[in-house]
Amino acid sequence: MSRVTCDLTVSLDGFVAGPNQSLSEPLGEGGEDLHRWQFEEREENAAEIAGILEAGAYIMGRNMFAGPGPGAWAEDWRGWWGEEPPYHAPVFVLTHQVREPLEMQGGTTFHFVNDGIEAALSRAREAAGGKDVAIAGGASTARQFLSAGLIDELRLHTAPIVLGGGERLLDGVRDIRLEPTAVSNSRFASHVRYRMLR
Amino acid sequence: MSRVTCDLTVSLDGFVAGPNQSLSEPLGEGGEDLHRWQFEEREENAAEIAGILEAGAYIMGRNMFAGPGPGAWAEDWRGWWGEEPPYHAPVFVLTHQVREPLEMQGGTTFHFVNDGIEAALSRAREAAGGKDVAIAGGASTARQFLSAGLIDELRLHTAPIVLGGGERLLDGVRDIRLEPTAVSNSRFASHVRYRMLR
Repeated sequence: MSRVTCDLTVSLDGFVAGPNQSLSEPLGEGGEDLHRWQFEEREENAAEIAGILEAGAYIMGRNMFAGPGPGAWAEDWRGWWGEEPPYHAPVFVLTHQVREPLEMQGGTTFHFVNDGIEAALSRAREAAGGKDVAIAGGASTARQFLSAGLIDELRLHTAPIVLGGGERLLDGVRDIRLEPTAVSNSRFASHVRYRMLR
Repeated sequence: MSRVTCDLTVSLDGFVAGPNQSLSEPLGEGGEDLHRWQFEEREENAAEIAGILEAGAYIMGRNMFAGPGPGAWAEDWRGWWGEEPPYHAPVFVLTHQVREPLEMQGGTTFHFVNDGIEAALSRAREAAGGKDVAIAGGASTARQFLSAGLIDELRLHTAPIVLGGGERLLDGVRDIRLEPTAVSNSRFASHVRYRMLR
């Protein structure tokens, strides 16, 4: 069966986004610096970036698709990624909104799932064709899957910055057991892969 | 000039101690599991353990020497480590108490410093004889040195456990810049060495 993976980037003090998230600053104050490793060090981090993109299907929360706040999700909202999103695979969006699948260019199709994380996972597994299913975020969606014991491999990318406030990755997540299996390093992030223990 | 190093073990959610620290449970609930890598995996973590013990002098906070709370520090308190503490070097204890140096077996002498972290560092540097000076803890002492820009290398040992509460390493520490320089891994901790940037 395909594995369920989850890649998340956190600050040294454990935040996935800085303080004061907004539509104009969706990662909060200073939050964009979390992701310098993906944009400014593509070569050094090629293996980790490939790991994110090799899944056969993705699951994301509503905010990841449409941004925080009630006003963002217009009927014709097509995501943040332009007409050719980087997923190139089916993406299952957790939402209460009922909506037809949205086919984008390059192989990405957004499916809108209204019946919870386990149903989304089941559909994503089927769609992944034996490849991994990736929990694409945001952090609250990752927390739900972690707490439910549905993730096989957590890949934590720690940026060497202190945000001092914002959204914490692990708030409210208890009773998980992990084992670090691999580490690597670059200037803008250190990477640890964790196998989730049952 | 000798470097200033600081080794700290944190949980995956960023705590150096669990909730409800007390004299009988100085690391709080679940906090002892932070340090399994040092006790149950000595061989796998030999390099990291050696790194802690190779300093020429140590600095620690009052609570690290005497425990939390006002009652702990009796006049004749000789530390937590028995008659032969593991430091085998001069240890400078930050305190308001005025007290003569306390010479233990095996080369450890506790010196009680009343005039602040910079004075302690200056004395420790002199005593280290060219070797590194290590900030031995606890976390609040480490935070003071971090915030003052006095640490050259931070070595963070992350235990794959979630404590859910307790004392956070980096609370209130702002405006530090770091660069990860080395990573390694074992079952009970992943290790990242950070060079502190000025």
